[in-house]
Amino acid sequence: MPGYVPGEQPRGEVLKLNTNENPYPPSPRVIEAIHAMMGSSGECARRYPDPLATSLREALAAFDGVAPEEVVAGNGSDEILRLLMTVALESGAPVATLWPTYSYYDFLAAQCDAVIVRHELDDAWQWPESLDRGSEPMVFITNPNPPVGTLYPLGTIAGLCRARSDAIVVCDEAYIAFAPEGSTAIPLLRNHANLVVTRTFSKSHQLAGLRVGYAVGTGEVIESLRKVKDSYNVNALSQAAAAAAIQDTAHFAETRAKIVGERERLGRELRSRGFTVPESQANFVFAQHFDAPAIFRALVERRVFVRWFDSPRTRLGLRITVGRPDQTDALLEALDASMKRA
Amino acid sequence: MPGYVPGEQPRGEVLKLNTNENPYPPSPRVIEAIHAMMGSSGECARRYPDPLATSLREALAAFDGVAPEEVVAGNGSDEILRLLMTVALESGAPVATLWPTYSYYDFLAAQCDAVIVRHELDDAWQWPESLDRGSEPMVFITNPNPPVGTLYPLGTIAGLCRARSDAIVVCDEAYIAFAPEGSTAIPLLRNHANLVVTRTFSKSHQLAGLRVGYAVGTGEVIESLRKVKDSYNVNALSQAAAAAAIQDTAHFAETRAKIVGERERLGRELRSRGFTVPESQANFVFAQHFDAPAIFRALVERRVFVRWFDSPRTRLGLRITVGRPDQTDALLEALDASMKRA
Repeated sequence: MPGYVPGEQPRGEVLKLNTNENPYPPSPRVIEAIHAMMGSSGECARRYPDPLATSLREALAAFDGVAPEEVVAGNGSDEILRLLMTVALESGAPVATLWPTYSYYDFLAAQCDAVIVRHELDDAWQWPESLDRGSEPMVFITNPNPPVGTLYPLGTIAGLCRARSDAIVVCDEAYIAFAPEGSTAIPLLRNHANLVVTRTFSKSHQLAGLRVGYAVGTGEVIESLRKVKDSYNVNALSQAAAAAAIQDTAHFAETRAKIVGERERLGRELRSRGFTVPESQANFVFAQHFDAPAIFRALVERRVFVRWFDSPRTRLGLRITVGRPDQTDALLEALDASMKRA
Repeated sequence: MPGYVPGEQPRGEVLKLNTNENPYPPSPRVIEAIHAMMGSSGECARRYPDPLATSLREALAAFDGVAPEEVVAGNGSDEILRLLMTVALESGAPVATLWPTYSYYDFLAAQCDAVIVRHELDDAWQWPESLDRGSEPMVFITNPNPPVGTLYPLGTIAGLCRARSDAIVVCDEAYIAFAPEGSTAIPLLRNHANLVVTRTFSKSHQLAGLRVGYAVGTGEVIESLRKVKDSYNVNALSQAAAAAAIQDTAHFAETRAKIVGERERLGRELRSRGFTVPESQANFVFAQHFDAPAIFRALVERRVFVRWFDSPRTRLGLRITVGRPDQTDALLEALDASMKRA
């Protein structure tokens, strides 16, 4: 089995727009929380963390309007996604996904000998009807869905949950923070016990380095996750950081607004340079161009890192993380120089 | 499948000697490293951590006299132990362990549908010959072994690796820091590609709350661990903390000496109160007494937490973490009051 290859983490002076990190610093309350927790004695380091992340789960439950028992915290949502496959799938079982989508699902499925069944989006990235008609015991969708950032409406998700009432439907909302308010599937949980919503603090709350994700659901699968997770899966500092982050709604709103605004500018600028950029509701855009592979290589030479996926549906596009305005300017300058030469 | 039940993490004013945490604060260099990493900008939180924990692995390799490629870091050694079972075992495969030992192996085996085969220690906690003669494809031993803290000599481990050359032998050295120098099986790695040594920072370096463990080995299994682990499994702050901890050898030596000294005093005091306390080379002792269950309950009433395992081989013993001298004093006082009443 080949390992998963994450986006490059280059060191030194580079423009890094390849792994959808948030370009703004975390909330000052997060930074304070870490310094306060660590203090001068390091007591939080010395003792085992709360295995159930109780305070964090209470903060998340309050934020999402659910009960703390309906929340499980993980060492990033990657852990949560892996556990979901582990608890729900027998060896050899099929798992339905959209395609293209987050390629990490392939890696996770290989680990538990599950088989990915791809339901292809059409050329306009529209929802595939086949997904509602399939019979796989588990369905993973990402909403908004990479690499384009397409947002599927709540009615579509609800329809999937109804049509697939015997399957577990995982709605991976890693990027939901950048979609319009009211886009989350969490309100659907009340009517669909087969739905699980997953989130991460990596993109929305500037905590990629601290590894915190969570799942929300009303069915038995949440209790199963709690049973199979590594006993002390979320470390003490990350629990405190995430709880502080979720409570600083002003910092979230401010950084979100900047990113959403910059996403629109980036799209316009790329379109004016000949790229086709479908509408994105995430913190990245997918910039399509017949010469994308050459442009990608020329950008790397200039120490500008965006993401290029070598698969038939994605090789003529660049997935570019939305950065700060100065990062957009630097990207555009590098693009102009690269495309002149290409 | 029942979940694993970790030792209780009581809050408030208690004497907590139940989960083998180290009673001393972490190295000042660890505390500085966290504050410095976090700084005022939180850049380390914003960005994904190094997925391969390169700096940490280099520090560990230097410490253990191996190559960085021979080291894999994990989110606590619990993650490493789980991954070892995952990569090496087919569903239904048997895994050999000592018995009694760390009960978390049972939980991990259940997760990957492996079956634990217990090789029982005799009443003097001596190594079972049956372990060398078995045919399970994987063997887990803890050295020193809980709940007693028995240290098995290097010759015994080497003999096991030779006798079981077709099996993967995992030597879990969670407590090796408290054994005499030269007890680690790491020098055996050169001659035994089937051996994997695992370690944790939880007990030896006061980092239970930050979740860092690692595996060292020369065979293919290390490369397999790297492939199947969650992509960003060790968070940025914990990588920095563990690297700082392993380099502060003076802090380690000082805290280790205090614990080893206190372990001897605790053993003497317990023996003088009628307990049978076998020699321990770990940071806990196993205090055997015909009335252990009642004493355990009486201690809980006094908010003194030690560990009691309800199994035939362990129910007449209390596993007591070695604390600071003042904690030993408080424990002995509570014991005296409890036993007078019992």
